[in-house]
Amino acid sequence: MRKIFPFVLALATSVGVFAQQALWSERTTWSPRVNDDKSVTFSIKAPKADKVLVTGEFVTGAAEMTKDKDGIWTYTTAPLSPELYIYNIVVDDVKIVDPSNVYQIRDTGTLFSYFIVPGDHSYNYAVNDVPHGSVTRVWYNSPVLGMKRRMSVYTPAGYEHNSERYPVIYLLHGMGGDEDAWLSLGRAAQIFDNLIANGKMKPAIVVMPNGNVDMEAAPGETKDGLITPTTDLPHTMEGSYEVAFPDIVAFVDKTYRTISDKSHRAIAGLSMGGFHSLHISKEYPDMFDYVGLFSAAINPLKANDSSVYKNFDEKLKAQFADAPKLYWIAIGDRDFLYDENVDFRKRLDRLGLKYEYTESDGGHIWRNWRDYLCKFVSLLF
Amino acid sequence: MRKIFPFVLALATSVGVFAQQALWSERTTWSPRVNDDKSVTFSIKAPKADKVLVTGEFVTGAAEMTKDKDGIWTYTTAPLSPELYIYNIVVDDVKIVDPSNVYQIRDTGTLFSYFIVPGDHSYNYAVNDVPHGSVTRVWYNSPVLGMKRRMSVYTPAGYEHNSERYPVIYLLHGMGGDEDAWLSLGRAAQIFDNLIANGKMKPAIVVMPNGNVDMEAAPGETKDGLITPTTDLPHTMEGSYEVAFPDIVAFVDKTYRTISDKSHRAIAGLSMGGFHSLHISKEYPDMFDYVGLFSAAINPLKANDSSVYKNFDEKLKAQFADAPKLYWIAIGDRDFLYDENVDFRKRLDRLGLKYEYTESDGGHIWRNWRDYLCKFVSLLF
Repeated sequence: MRKIFPFVLALATSVGVFAQQALWSERTTWSPRVNDDKSVTFSIKAPKADKVLVTGEFVTGAAEMTKDKDGIWTYTTAPLSPELYIYNIVVDDVKIVDPSNVYQIRDTGTLFSYFIVPGDHSYNYAVNDVPHGSVTRVWYNSPVLGMKRRMSVYTPAGYEHNSERYPVIYLLHGMGGDEDAWLSLGRAAQIFDNLIANGKMKPAIVVMPNGNVDMEAAPGETKDGLITPTTDLPHTMEGSYEVAFPDIVAFVDKTYRTISDKSHRAIAGLSMGGFHSLHISKEYPDMFDYVGLFSAAINPLKANDSSVYKNFDEKLKAQFADAPKLYWIAIGDRDFLYDENVDFRKRLDRLGLKYEYTESDGGHIWRNWRDYLCKFVSLLF
Repeated sequence: MRKIFPFVLALATSVGVFAQQALWSERTTWSPRVNDDKSVTFSIKAPKADKVLVTGEFVTGAAEMTKDKDGIWTYTTAPLSPELYIYNIVVDDVKIVDPSNVYQIRDTGTLFSYFIVPGDHSYNYAVNDVPHGSVTRVWYNSPVLGMKRRMSVYTPAGYEHNSERYPVIYLLHGMGGDEDAWLSLGRAAQIFDNLIANGKMKPAIVVMPNGNVDMEAAPGETKDGLITPTTDLPHTMEGSYEVAFPDIVAFVDKTYRTISDKSHRAIAGLSMGGFHSLHISKEYPDMFDYVGLFSAAINPLKANDSSVYKNFDEKLKAQFADAPKLYWIAIGDRDFLYDENVDFRKRLDRLGLKYEYTESDGGHIWRNWRDYLCKFVSLLF
């Protein structure tokens, strides 16, 4: 018996359901369990349920769980590749996060449970015994947009106690995302810690701003309160973010020990963030020497009269007159934006502008974006 | 129809359950809904369920929800006082977070949904239209413990762009908590933003370390991976945290623009954190001029032979020889640590040592600790 017992016992015996601080997991099962062969077992106690499913990228559609005599439902996958996986459990048509797993992620308006199958490929997504950078949520002023806005900033291990200046990566989220997206589903901080510690990435400051100019910050982090997240945000791909982006760069160069020139700045993003990276780097041709388009949306919204999207070819040529050191395009072969990216590469080819291209399997998914991030940042500076 | 529609439609039509990025909330109901009279309506679609309950501080035990013809269960509370509330839904004995509410909090090993009923009392817990400080997760070195450890640090609005030095508040969590606890259930960043903006708190740096010296960081943030949170941590109230605490102060004074003297340092904590605040301030009598004990555990674990807990009266007298400007004790009248606190106040009275005492109603709960935090920080510096 642990020495701590008397205190805990006193607390336990005085606990009503909500009368005291919650101290213990109320889990009756241990889920998920990553087995030695890298299969994963999910379990949930639901004695009264008729049908329980688990959904996730590792099953086709949904897998039916099996009930034992104690009312505990279980399902074991085939051995899985090392990766971060998200999933839900569906109990009699009610889709929930796994009550036994405290690790979960919000993606726009949906909650998922998650787990990591360990191995080489997922090493960079795990917290390992390496020096850790700092992650800050900080508010900046955007005079162009007339609002204070929130961003996430990663500074590499050692930043606080040295006097070095660092290059900067601007890392942009997709539609429905916000300044937290790359840190949660993207595992960005873990990726940077691991790649830097293993000599695969040059130490850099990484800035993750919010690309929805209708929002000051992620849902729940603004004066609008605990709103329902939505993608119904009109000002995302119509030019205002591109116009306002220099406010972000100015704040970062003022606030952090940056090397504030083109050859020490990268911009990359996924989906809508790829769109933003394309157009921002084109609008400010002296700003970024490294551009990464991950499953990028390419075309502006219809009926968009922003000057940002006019004279596309001419602006691309102007950007490439002093060509970026790296213009990196990646997409999955089943991505719904695949054809749009084929067209864009043809455009670059026709204009004689050089880029690098990586094609992976799969669709418009975080598994690809985490992988693209690892590859892209290892090519910088 | 919004301009954004063609892009979203393209994404929607190509989406499999997990084949693409999750873009939409799959909510079929809108829950919880705070009504005009400050009653709150919960709802969940569960057509096949036989019994659905909602649990929370606002009901006694649990309230039965009522099913309509579409299989949507609802429950409306009586009008509630302005406050942050946590709750769960129980569908046929399966306790879950509300699938329609993306806002939730982990407390040790349990997940809760939460909402805020607006009003005067909860104003400080909400994000309001005031300047926002920054919140950083940073790792520090603890030579005494021989490990790198994670802490959360709040710096007030303006910190990044001025050259002022600030007082420091060390804010400690309870058993089962970690460096995230005061920021999540404690709403500490919102409280500081609001109180500072409204002139009720002097701008300060607030340091929220991890008080479990068996952990480098919060669950999921260490090399141990996505572990099951537990309170079964032997090294919490046996003296090692007290012995190692100067490592934290040294790091903070080296890293941030602090005013590094006793009259500009406060330490406060809840439950186990109150215990730590009591003993740390006593062990280092020249370190803190402000001490806050919120529902504090007072007594060390049994059979504890750490020197930290020996000569209690003598050490208290030594601490009060150059008396703290504020020694603030608060507890609820139904707290299971109430008697221990009565005894401690008798001890202070017997020794002739001055303190301030606040008694609230209720037990060992976050509602009290948020309130104590607001009161305590308004008395500092």
